[in-house]
Amino acid sequence: MRATAIALVVTALLAGTAAAAVKPETAIRYRQGLYRSIAWNFTPLADMAKGKQPFDAREAEKRAARIAATSEQLLEGFPPGSDRGAETEAKAEIWRNFADFEAKMHDLSVQSNALLAAAKSGDEARFKAAFDPLKQACKACHDQYKAD
Amino acid sequence: MRATAIALVVTALLAGTAAAAVKPETAIRYRQGLYRSIAWNFTPLADMAKGKQPFDAREAEKRAARIAATSEQLLEGFPPGSDRGAETEAKAEIWRNFADFEAKMHDLSVQSNALLAAAKSGDEARFKAAFDPLKQACKACHDQYKAD
Repeated sequence: MRATAIALVVTALLAGTAAAAVKPETAIRYRQGLYRSIAWNFTPLADMAKGKQPFDAREAEKRAARIAATSEQLLEGFPPGSDRGAETEAKAEIWRNFADFEAKMHDLSVQSNALLAAAKSGDEARFKAAFDPLKQACKACHDQYKAD
Repeated sequence: MRATAIALVVTALLAGTAAAAVKPETAIRYRQGLYRSIAWNFTPLADMAKGKQPFDAREAEKRAARIAATSEQLLEGFPPGSDRGAETEAKAEIWRNFADFEAKMHDLSVQSNALLAAAKSGDEARFKAAFDPLKQACKACHDQYKAD
């Protein structure tokens, strides 16, 4: 039992060390990278939603799937203390309202998955209807937590 | 028929315009963001493979799945002309040997999917055996196409 207890403490310490070893700068660059990937894939979706590019269900599905998967990775990029350490547009408010920030991130995930389902259906009208809620999910978070 | 032909040409031109509208700088930042995401998820996998962190099959699966999905997005980040336009470590050789570069990217995808399958099996030895081929897939491309 004693050995098990010691092993558990050692494991916890090692896990703590691993987490502590992530520099704020690394987290900042990581999350910025994810946002770039989201923007890259968002642009053709926006063009299809606005009719600037013909609707292509397969292409829309691919792009929406990427955004949905990437959105699941974002929160990890906002560890405590990463409001500074490299140039960042993330406001310090994020860490003061983390539950709200998490809720907004969750909405991004929900809306990108809804867009993915709409794209998979192949129904252009459904796709177009699902696009605005995703855009609003992005905007809600940017308005409050992203510096201009 | 004539209308269809014209529509096809217009569609092709629009698609061309959309592709041409991507600035080299945007592509460079996009691919760098993907590499950051890969590095972020690679680190805990490396720590588990080396025994610096206890093997956790679910965690390994999550990280390997992210790398596998991200690897599928990389090639898009290397359009012709994006050897310059922002600071980049990508050598111009990439575009002179694009078929080889694509083959190396394909190997990254194959090896990250193999690591994902190994993680899913929950078998630590299998996971550890699948890690080195992924590392080698990264290295093979970096050695030839990434500036120091």
